Amino acid sequence: MASLSRTTIGAGDADRALRDRAAQVIPGGMYGHMATTLAPPRAPQFYARAEGCRLWDADGRDYVDLLSAYGPNLLGYGEPRVLAAARAQMEVCDTTSGPSGLMVELAEAMVARIADAQWAMFCKNGSDATGMAVMIARAATGRRRILTARNSYHGAQPWCTPRPVGVLPEERAHIAHFDYNDLEGLEAAVADAGEDLAAIILTPHRHETFEDQVDVDAAFARRVRALADRSGALLILDEVRTGFRLAAGGAWEGLGVAPDLTCWGKVLGNGQPISAVTGGARAREAAGSVFVTGSFWFSAAPMAAALEVMAQVAEGGYLARLQSAGRRLREGLAEQAGRHDFPLTQSGPAAMPLFRFEDDADLRRIYRFCDVAIANGALLSPYHNMFTNAAMTPADIDRVLEATEAAFRDLRARNADLPPVPAPVAARLAAMAR
Amino acid sequence: MASLSRTTIGAGDADRALRDRAAQVIPGGMYGHMATTLAPPRAPQFYARAEGCRLWDADGRDYVDLLSAYGPNLLGYGEPRVLAAARAQMEVCDTTSGPSGLMVELAEAMVARIADAQWAMFCKNGSDATGMAVMIARAATGRRRILTARNSYHGAQPWCTPRPVGVLPEERAHIAHFDYNDLEGLEAAVADAGEDLAAIILTPHRHETFEDQVDVDAAFARRVRALADRSGALLILDEVRTGFRLAAGGAWEGLGVAPDLTCWGKVLGNGQPISAVTGGARAREAAGSVFVTGSFWFSAAPMAAALEVMAQVAEGGYLARLQSAGRRLREGLAEQAGRHDFPLTQSGPAAMPLFRFEDDADLRRIYRFCDVAIANGALLSPYHNMFTNAAMTPADIDRVLEATEAAFRDLRARNADLPPVPAPVAARLAAMAR
Repeated sequence: MASLSRTTIGAGDADRALRDRAAQVIPGGMYGHMATTLAPPRAPQFYARAEGCRLWDADGRDYVDLLSAYGPNLLGYGEPRVLAAARAQMEVCDTTSGPSGLMVELAEAMVARIADAQWAMFCKNGSDATGMAVMIARAATGRRRILTARNSYHGAQPWCTPRPVGVLPEERAHIAHFDYNDLEGLEAAVADAGEDLAAIILTPHRHETFEDQVDVDAAFARRVRALADRSGALLILDEVRTGFRLAAGGAWEGLGVAPDLTCWGKVLGNGQPISAVTGGARAREAAGSVFVTGSFWFSAAPMAAALEVMAQVAEGGYLARLQSAGRRLREGLAEQAGRHDFPLTQSGPAAMPLFRFEDDADLRRIYRFCDVAIANGALLSPYHNMFTNAAMTPADIDRVLEATEAAFRDLRARNADLPPVPAPVAARLAAMAR
Repeated sequence: MASLSRTTIGAGDADRALRDRAAQVIPGGMYGHMATTLAPPRAPQFYARAEGCRLWDADGRDYVDLLSAYGPNLLGYGEPRVLAAARAQMEVCDTTSGPSGLMVELAEAMVARIADAQWAMFCKNGSDATGMAVMIARAATGRRRILTARNSYHGAQPWCTPRPVGVLPEERAHIAHFDYNDLEGLEAAVADAGEDLAAIILTPHRHETFEDQVDVDAAFARRVRALADRSGALLILDEVRTGFRLAAGGAWEGLGVAPDLTCWGKVLGNGQPISAVTGGARAREAAGSVFVTGSFWFSAAPMAAALEVMAQVAEGGYLARLQSAGRRLREGLAEQAGRHDFPLTQSGPAAMPLFRFEDDADLRRIYRFCDVAIANGALLSPYHNMFTNAAMTPADIDRVLEATEAAFRDLRARNADLPPVPAPVAARLAAMAR
């Protein structure tokens, strides 16, 4: 393996200077899912350049980025065809006093691509899509109860935000929970909802922070569908994070389980801002009855980008690329873990990597591992599933593996003397243990 | 006045064909504030090209657009400097795994520009901004009650949506109302809230659909501030629609009334998708404590656009241009109305035109007027305030006035025989009368 040219010098001066300025004019210096609060110490907060699967931080150091913008980067940063489509459309028209015909074309493309979709509605945030789906389900059924898998993330609106500071209990009324893949618990929750069950919403597989990912049991998925049917409720599949990464259509098409509503976001415009809800006949009238809108929901440039993404999804080659990148990473990590004798658990689909060390309850080992990997040029997350993308070549994955090799060596060198995790991580773990 | 080359042929074949296709794949054919449900019959639904203050519909017919994308078009569609900034940034980095330094620069620019702002947070939709402000106010005070002016639009989230289909009463708990400019009513609402008052949220002036616009009484604005102070609540100014259109800073700076939180959107990126909340010291800690985020909130290209908008706002020339366009339109309409003897009430700031006919309770006259104006190349709204923009030249306004001259002539020719308003408009009026 080639020697590493990178030195582990931590967050750079430019990043630190930006953080100092940010602390003056942004509460807490940064907020939301891209704040580095829970990241390893040397993860940069600010980036200056992106290309393919590479990011450059404010100090000019470059990384192979396994975070993929927390999802949106499907085909590569600045993928030429998508970028050209968006830029060309911006010259013609973008945000005007109505949609362009591209909105119709994009709805047609999604209906053609997704087996259970007969219509589409577009929005901006993933939270817009999940909130809209819940609204449609309640309008369709005239019922109130929404069932979600316990601790599943469906966005940051009051009904579902994982940290409801400034949110009233009333805004979360009639939201109840079951455990993912727990048939008995699901049946009990459905029974408890009785005739007030509006919808069951869940992700195609479980991909929550600070947990292993878990595939859905096929029997569980089919039971969700059957219970929704029996009670007259709707089944909502939240594909905001998984969409078009696991399949070139709906994630549950292979299982033969058709949701009534599906939420899309993240990858839909390969980074251009657009999200969507698609649905079938059962929800169409209700979908036409709710009032949902946003200043930029009908802008044409992100729709031009999404049409190009749909075209590349239809071509299909992207999927093999991001899956084989994921497999190469998984195999390389397994080999390194075995050789260095640090047993590693890798979970979830290859295209959405997540790994942790066994015997690492306080996460010191995985945090140190990712910190060293970051300092060596591979942006990894110790707590959030990662994403491969179609721009990743075998050489890019090999560069990640050079960084993880350095991280394994570091672990061996100082295994008994690892620094504690950042305080917010320790607090999160303590809260989860309660 | 030059004769009109345009013929009044109604919505064109291409627009109709798109509507037919949309009806198959979009519930109701279209949704949200850009649906033409409440528009005059010949308003196009789809647009194909935009430049300056001009729009071209799917049939290639061009309009001077007084809707200005329902707000975002401040400097002109495709304004070269803003477009160049966004396009250049897209080449460097846009949606990545963290913000770029532009986020800090933009927060600094807003803090420099807005007298009462010490910090900024960015989001996508106007509803994101108002929802975030409410959350921050509740977090800051530990209280629940939010007071809004009756029937004021603050977005489409459950707490505030004007048409709560699919929304639970619980999601709107602890929202109470006063009448805009009604001192006594405001005091009663504040007294009723008692120690549970978290915030009062209102727009700088009243700009609701199907109503004349109303300036804020300075005494009322000052009283809002005093009552919020006395009860320990926060004052939230919703500038999503007014921001940087009425002043190159906060709309109430001239009144000497400083809000604790201000919501911005629409114009901030001149059509590039970005919205924001700014605030002062009192709300900073709470603002850092809420969990708010979105997949595309930290994208760099809209921030590059917004920085360029802030630069042009600082230069200041844009404001005189959009205001003088508004005055020219207002004076021209007044002259025509007088000459044709159709008394016209014009309300609101010149840069946000709205007009109605006197003695027109069922709105037949204003709908026919706008319909004929649209067919003659001026996109007007009979129910929603309009917006001038800085790309409008005297010649553009004169073209609008040619269209309205044709509309006045039409009214004179068939005043006794006007078609009824579209059915959804009649239903809305009936609902308002109840």
